[in-house]
Amino acid sequence: MNESRLLEHIARRSMDLHGQGPVIVGPGDDCAVLHGSSGSLLITVDHLIEGRHYEPGTDIDLIARKAVARSVSDIAAMAGTPTWALATGALSADITQQRADELFERMSHWASHWGCPLVGGDIALMPGVAGRSGPTVLTVTVAGHTHPTRGPVLRSAARAGDEVYVTGAIGRSFASGRHLRFEPRVAQAAWLADRLGDALGAMIDLSDGLGRDAGRIARSSGVRVEIDAPRLPLTDIAQSPLAAAGDGEDYELLLTVRAGAGLPGAIEVPGHAPVALTRIGRVVAGEGCVIIAADGNASDATNLGWDHANDV
Amino acid sequence: MNESRLLEHIARRSMDLHGQGPVIVGPGDDCAVLHGSSGSLLITVDHLIEGRHYEPGTDIDLIARKAVARSVSDIAAMAGTPTWALATGALSADITQQRADELFERMSHWASHWGCPLVGGDIALMPGVAGRSGPTVLTVTVAGHTHPTRGPVLRSAARAGDEVYVTGAIGRSFASGRHLRFEPRVAQAAWLADRLGDALGAMIDLSDGLGRDAGRIARSSGVRVEIDAPRLPLTDIAQSPLAAAGDGEDYELLLTVRAGAGLPGAIEVPGHAPVALTRIGRVVAGEGCVIIAADGNASDATNLGWDHANDV
Repeated sequence: MNESRLLEHIARRSMDLHGQGPVIVGPGDDCAVLHGSSGSLLITVDHLIEGRHYEPGTDIDLIARKAVARSVSDIAAMAGTPTWALATGALSADITQQRADELFERMSHWASHWGCPLVGGDIALMPGVAGRSGPTVLTVTVAGHTHPTRGPVLRSAARAGDEVYVTGAIGRSFASGRHLRFEPRVAQAAWLADRLGDALGAMIDLSDGLGRDAGRIARSSGVRVEIDAPRLPLTDIAQSPLAAAGDGEDYELLLTVRAGAGLPGAIEVPGHAPVALTRIGRVVAGEGCVIIAADGNASDATNLGWDHANDV
Repeated sequence: MNESRLLEHIARRSMDLHGQGPVIVGPGDDCAVLHGSSGSLLITVDHLIEGRHYEPGTDIDLIARKAVARSVSDIAAMAGTPTWALATGALSADITQQRADELFERMSHWASHWGCPLVGGDIALMPGVAGRSGPTVLTVTVAGHTHPTRGPVLRSAARAGDEVYVTGAIGRSFASGRHLRFEPRVAQAAWLADRLGDALGAMIDLSDGLGRDAGRIARSSGVRVEIDAPRLPLTDIAQSPLAAAGDGEDYELLLTVRAGAGLPGAIEVPGHAPVALTRIGRVVAGEGCVIIAADGNASDATNLGWDHANDV
């Protein structure tokens, strides 16, 4: 089974939901967009699974932090502001009361920290199979407001001619432990929407790898994304631009901007450390995402990333 | 670990959320209640776990149906109307594409059937442990509107002097397979709120057993619930009133009504089969839930139900 293919299949089948009832944008983007009280309501949910998104034995505070941060990052990818959250935990039957309570206390802490207090949730114990319980499975749902003037920033809004930018640096986030400590780019996304307005095209947060996630913008927008490998801002431990574009778990923003909008090299929001903003490529007619090396050699990056390796 | 104790602990710690920001009622009731566009927004999420809430090998359509119905039943317990849903699935890595797709197609079908189209979700594959994958873990979040005139019907609104009613019949729902096919009492709850208005006190849906769930109303309202065993409407295969009050998985409504409101023996909503409505007891000063046998012998039923047997 291949998650990406299944998610795309479901998104395609759900296209008839768009514009129906409360639904403005249904499955297939970082968040669903619904008619809400003040502007539109954003909704997103993500899993965090032991042994897959974190190693067994990881500190509980960091598990809780990442569970919430992943969904907050999806709100950032729409340039939204988080407002409330729900958390669920399917836990091993042998978990202690203290550990389970600490997990939910820390999820509640991080949810409030990012402006979306935990308003509810569910806890269930998992049956053991042959004396072993399944891995801990957490989900966090986060709701948010859309940006008051720009509205939701969709994956489908890239146009040929756009420039492509990325925040921060990418590569080996899982190996470095950064995937447990990243700061969702909510303030930076709002800064971009404030400053660029309709000159901000498409945006996505990088969870499955820059190549694959840029490929999602390309598919949704009906365009091709070209990335210049030498321009990619890499972390100190990244192995190469192509490897970094497949690593995933960066949780940086990838965005397209109408040509000539003019942006500084860093986003400086009061109260936040400056975050690098790097122009790394362009949007052209065509499809998919290619990474172009210094010698002009182009590699298809659309299927880079962890999901590919998990095809069964 | 004991789920009920943990959930209560979290609800207590979250009391300071009530009335904060978007939150009208936080954790600890059937749904959270938030400030929304038209009246208030109800939000609930429930797990459905293989081997716990359904047997391995259960028909996919029935798994999908129950996953959605459990959360829709929580909306009914507040007398709300479902509006949209989110679904997540943590699936075995060896699930086929066809089976995973069918599962989400059927969840989408049932969500639309009950008026809350699936607007998004997440799918993740679970890592195997020693060659075995964990059980399938589904969650379904459902949002709803509160009743336009009565507002949300909370667990905390029972008063000494109220009469206690239950819809339908209870007992051995898991053994009979009814837990896979029950009809969430959305229309009947709306009928009760329409007809009774503020004479409708507290309400809850019966998931963990009548004794335990009545005990939740008792605790939230600061009262005692007395049930007359001979009055309990039992299914054909129920073993005894006391056993039925501990079976759980009934998904009927338990409600309290101001004395003398006067209700018929069945709820008849156009387009729905009639549902029995039976007066089974009363609310008095005190605490907990007791079931009183024909001979006047009272049994504490507050801790009846499956959770008790799962204490570790």
